[in-house]
Amino acid sequence: MEVSKILTYCNENRLAVCPQGGNTSIVGGSVPVLDEIVVSTELMNQIVSLDDVSGVLVCEAGCILEDLDNKLSKLDLMMPLDLGAKGSCHIGGNVSTNAGGLRLLRYGNLHGNILGLEVVKANGEILDLLSMLKKDNTGYHLKHLFIGSEGTLGFVTKVAVQCPTKPKTQNLAFLGLETYENVLETFKAGKGCLSEILSAIEVIDNESMDVVREHLNLRSPIGEYPYYLLIETSGSRDEHDQEKLNSFVEMALAKRFILNGTVVTEPSKFKDIWSIREKIPETFKREGYVFCYDFTLPLQNYYKLVHEMRQYMGSQARRVFGFGHLGDGNLHLQISIKEFNPDILDYIEPHIFNRVKEMKGSISSEHGIGFLKAKYLSMIKDPNAVRLMQSLKASLDPNGILNPYKIFRS
Amino acid sequence: MEVSKILTYCNENRLAVCPQGGNTSIVGGSVPVLDEIVVSTELMNQIVSLDDVSGVLVCEAGCILEDLDNKLSKLDLMMPLDLGAKGSCHIGGNVSTNAGGLRLLRYGNLHGNILGLEVVKANGEILDLLSMLKKDNTGYHLKHLFIGSEGTLGFVTKVAVQCPTKPKTQNLAFLGLETYENVLETFKAGKGCLSEILSAIEVIDNESMDVVREHLNLRSPIGEYPYYLLIETSGSRDEHDQEKLNSFVEMALAKRFILNGTVVTEPSKFKDIWSIREKIPETFKREGYVFCYDFTLPLQNYYKLVHEMRQYMGSQARRVFGFGHLGDGNLHLQISIKEFNPDILDYIEPHIFNRVKEMKGSISSEHGIGFLKAKYLSMIKDPNAVRLMQSLKASLDPNGILNPYKIFRS
Repeated sequence: MEVSKILTYCNENRLAVCPQGGNTSIVGGSVPVLDEIVVSTELMNQIVSLDDVSGVLVCEAGCILEDLDNKLSKLDLMMPLDLGAKGSCHIGGNVSTNAGGLRLLRYGNLHGNILGLEVVKANGEILDLLSMLKKDNTGYHLKHLFIGSEGTLGFVTKVAVQCPTKPKTQNLAFLGLETYENVLETFKAGKGCLSEILSAIEVIDNESMDVVREHLNLRSPIGEYPYYLLIETSGSRDEHDQEKLNSFVEMALAKRFILNGTVVTEPSKFKDIWSIREKIPETFKREGYVFCYDFTLPLQNYYKLVHEMRQYMGSQARRVFGFGHLGDGNLHLQISIKEFNPDILDYIEPHIFNRVKEMKGSISSEHGIGFLKAKYLSMIKDPNAVRLMQSLKASLDPNGILNPYKIFRS
Repeated sequence: MEVSKILTYCNENRLAVCPQGGNTSIVGGSVPVLDEIVVSTELMNQIVSLDDVSGVLVCEAGCILEDLDNKLSKLDLMMPLDLGAKGSCHIGGNVSTNAGGLRLLRYGNLHGNILGLEVVKANGEILDLLSMLKKDNTGYHLKHLFIGSEGTLGFVTKVAVQCPTKPKTQNLAFLGLETYENVLETFKAGKGCLSEILSAIEVIDNESMDVVREHLNLRSPIGEYPYYLLIETSGSRDEHDQEKLNSFVEMALAKRFILNGTVVTEPSKFKDIWSIREKIPETFKREGYVFCYDFTLPLQNYYKLVHEMRQYMGSQARRVFGFGHLGDGNLHLQISIKEFNPDILDYIEPHIFNRVKEMKGSISSEHGIGFLKAKYLSMIKDPNAVRLMQSLKASLDPNGILNPYKIFRS
């Protein structure tokens, strides 16, 4: 196989390699730093097999996520992950970065959904870990070494995925809330009432709503509130799901968890409301220079960090705003200033990463470490864990040819 | 910490250690082979924290699965796994063996549900991988090295688990079918119609039903058929779930996928029907000597193996019968004979494992390799993968003190 030959040659000649999928990384994981040879998955775009009874898809690493989802859709199946970058990201890159996305809350993470992998080691050796089975307890579960290791331990060439049943219906509630405490109360009540049909819980703060109003002229359909929640359900019977969602919203209103709310069932309105949330990142370039962070925080600290940073930045920031996948504790926190200023960067970092660590959070929820966050790895992780990571790297890629300068700052 | 001190001492003095949880392994994974020191998790039975908003439980490795589930139940949460051995198995053992069980179909596997671990390495070093976060992409995902490695790479001392919402209602359909093709048609239709509320699909063949009738006087409530399916739903609204399940059974009858079926909503009847399935293993000791196998097979080959083995055994076997977690492709295949006979064992093995390999299945779906299947590891796995497993073992436990003779036959 070609990737094996390329890596064998590069390893023998000590040539560094940068594996590249759709090149959508936002931490510089998929771009070469110095003189690495880019090996792209682009031409590895074939579906190997697709079983509509078991829902098992096997495909090459360069298949585009959205293309796969469209093919599956015809068989009433879906990919278990969905990202903003779905139109260009490759499944091999998704696996290598352990991509998360919008509906992890419902369908779980890739460690749970990837059944098998074919991987080429740095020395060109092909590892056949391409199991297509949901249960397989025969020896160490090696595939997980390569899920989320950002192309530094091996080159993923084929992927087997367990695909869930595509929902027949989706509904949405858009809610306005007064306090972050109310946000948590509503979250907890929603998990209880909506349980099996819950597919996304997104939070948007008022400052994020200001940003989309100012730059894109998009408005909250229910007036202004300090916090907004977008709660999506996915299920198999429309009337059942609407009944559950309506009675949940009524209950939340009655208990004063929420101040206002609307339930949207019509597909075009459903899209409109989602686009408020999805278009927040598009405003960044109009907002000046934006420092973007991707944290996971325990829910009790989730919004505390935004408040804290707003105070910490004072008038140095134009705006500090937060939104994200509340259901997974994943916060996208932004600090906007007029134009880039290295002093302000130094003022923010590493301070913000330290605070996240103190709050028992993660400094990279779904984006990975890549090149940009490599210098913080040893700051945030248990030193014994970092040593084990380094020893795995040394053992699997002794010449260090695979995606150098990523994850570890050597 | 005590485990660290024990392992440090044992490692320095080259003393072998057998980590032991509830000692429920059926492949000899948790029992010493020669002179290993048994280190039990029994006294590590404290809950460290439990957050009812996020559903994150942190506990010590010796907590009993059922005890944890009972505690969670009071907060409308549940453990994401459920096994026959729940009354005695320890969560640390569940993690170390990547336990599967009855509802993996719905709640996913432990690689997806375990958020973090504390692990003691063979040299006594404590690895703090105890993240409590759903998304955390910061470096290699080391915890997965220890999930399913059967205590050979490290000793799991603490566990963080993502716990789902406990369903408010459960219903059951018990169906009689003519052919295995009908079984697959019904399975596929059930995934489509029941989608988000589906929580178990179990298959029982007529020979398994004969066994429970003969030894326990339990009978199919719908008369005799070549195959039976037990389809369980779990959800948040009883009337919605019953409506879905009833209309699914009506459709399956109308399409002649099934010959007969009953929907059970009353809790005591629900238990009675589940007990037909759950009590099959209790009959083994009355059946004579039973060779028990735990395979995963692609669905098109799932029952083919039972037919084949019935033919292969001919009059040498008293009975060849199959049942299992169809939803996960997990088949429990039994061959019963009057009394143990080594010639028959040699006739069955390794033949049966070879056939499973040829059919692209797994020779151990959920039970693991342990001691009993170690000699087959190299037969069934890619040699490059086995070499990588051995190099991981050598690197993490250079003196080979952790659970020797398990997984690898050295």
